[in-house]
Amino acid sequence: MKQEKLPLARLRQLSEHMPFNRSLGLRVAKTHEDGVTIEIPIRDDMRNLAGVLHGGVSATIADAAVGIAVLRHFGGERACTTVDLKINYFRPISEGKVVARSKLIRVGNHLAVGTVELKDAAGNLAGFATATYMLLEWPARIKIKK
Amino acid sequence: MKQEKLPLARLRQLSEHMPFNRSLGLRVAKTHEDGVTIEIPIRDDMRNLAGVLHGGVSATIADAAVGIAVLRHFGGERACTTVDLKINYFRPISEGKVVARSKLIRVGNHLAVGTVELKDAAGNLAGFATATYMLLEWPARIKIKK
Amino acid sequence: MKQEKLPLARLRQLSEHMPFNRSLGLRVAKTHEDGVTIEIPIRDDMRNLAGVLHGGVSATIADAAVGIAVLRHFGGERACTTVDLKINYFRPISEGKVVARSKLIRVGNHLAVGTVELKDAAGNLAGFATATYMLLEWPARIKIKK
Amino acid sequence: MKQEKLPLARLRQLSEHMPFNRSLGLRVAKTHEDGVTIEIPIRDDMRNLAGVLHGGVSATIADAAVGIAVLRHFGGERACTTVDLKINYFRPISEGKVVARSKLIRVGNHLAVGTVELKDAAGNLAGFATATYMLLEWPARIKIKK
Repeated sequence: MKQEKLPLARLRQLSEHMPFNRSLGLRVAKTHEDGVTIEIPIRDDMRNLAGVLHGGVSATIADAAVGIAVLRHFGGERACTTVDLKINYFRPISEGKVVARSKLIRVGNHLAVGTVELKDAAGNLAGFATATYMLLEWPARIKIKK
Repeated sequence: MKQEKLPLARLRQLSEHMPFNRSLGLRVAKTHEDGVTIEIPIRDDMRNLAGVLHGGVSATIADAAVGIAVLRHFGGERACTTVDLKINYFRPISEGKVVARSKLIRVGNHLAVGTVELKDAAGNLAGFATATYMLLEWPARIKIKK
Repeated sequence: MKQEKLPLARLRQLSEHMPFNRSLGLRVAKTHEDGVTIEIPIRDDMRNLAGVLHGGVSATIADAAVGIAVLRHFGGERACTTVDLKINYFRPISEGKVVARSKLIRVGNHLAVGTVELKDAAGNLAGFATATYMLLEWPARIKIKK
Repeated sequence: MKQEKLPLARLRQLSEHMPFNRSLGLRVAKTHEDGVTIEIPIRDDMRNLAGVLHGGVSATIADAAVGIAVLRHFGGERACTTVDLKINYFRPISEGKVVARSKLIRVGNHLAVGTVELKDAAGNLAGFATATYMLLEWPARIKIKK
């Protein structure tokens, strides 16, 4: 049986339960057939020594973009945990927001893999990531209240 | 001419100028011949849906651990920017702190590569990362005040 | 000035000058606006213990798919060398051929990054890779005869 | 119960059953508490356009170095398959052999992760890799004859 995918409102609610995402102001902007678009508005406390967005914020949003896509894919009924994240940085982001568009390219029995395009507010490609999540089958450690 | 490496006190000072590191409470704990040890005390606002440390915080500290090692290696005289970060997650971290020990394994003319062991407060290996930095030769975008 | 891209016939000729590609029977099947499609027919001497295509062959074709796309992008006028390859394996390939479709997603001053979809003969996605090439500016170590 | 590790002679025998390893002349040189050292003598048919060792051969030996370490770790009693390989290339190898020393840094219930140092015949570090293997629990697809 195919799981019903989570609607946007529900995904937004869930993302508000994740403390680190919330502290970064992460927002689910859109859902797609194969993934999601999320964004983080840039704040001054997210910058690095060079004054641009810290790579750690981009890594966080890339990780989250695939995690939220997996969550949605399984209708919130399956827990998952990142086992691997790889991110390439192309250009610095200094203003506005960072936008991450994830696509699930593989959902297996144990692992799910997604790609992520990272863009700045003007739509320039700023980075690219691949994340692998392990799908947990055991009594999930998280209980999502409905 | 070999650059003189930055001492611990100076590295700590620099890390305080990086807004995102500061907002995470990142601390340089130790310098080594080939890298640094840095740590972030875990706060509740760094957790994910499962209640453990968000992978984005681990990615941030891994990225920073290599960046700070490169900064130190060149005596703070050379700017650098992450071009690639790859991180494997082995086990969740729920309490205490996350500790990152970086080692520069390659410093070339254009690129520097470092590995990072991520551990929890008890010393268990929680993850492993590899980061590649591009060494900037052009008039550096950052000016580090001494 | 924008470099003229290499035509298919020229790319094929070049690929025949690469001993390892030749020994694997690598063939350039198609060029695209943003990359190339190449393939390797599976031979029994390319299998692993499980009897399926060795991951090293997939890694080789992924690496080559981006390298050939870079070669083409610069009209064969610029040497390049792989600095980083990351590949995810989704499903084993046992018969027919392995097909790699590369896309250059970033061409900077020093680095070029491409993604690769790996498919089996039936068109099933068997893996996904990202490769980073350094663009060499110094007197190239290779001289491509025209 | 802890599995007895495979001795060197047995590992060598197994590696001879892997067609692609055999066709590259891969040899298990040494076993270690935490991994193995394997090597491939460089032949002219392993070169790329620049005349140096093709990155695909290095990727193959990196993949194999972790796979053989996993095989040994479980006494040959457990099948495994690569899910992810990441390799950084530092310097070209032109003569002699490529040597890969793997270390298993994580063996979990489902995944095993190893790092690999790639060196040339003179002992110079030529690259670094991380590979993730999925441990197969189902009736293994391979049957290793003893």
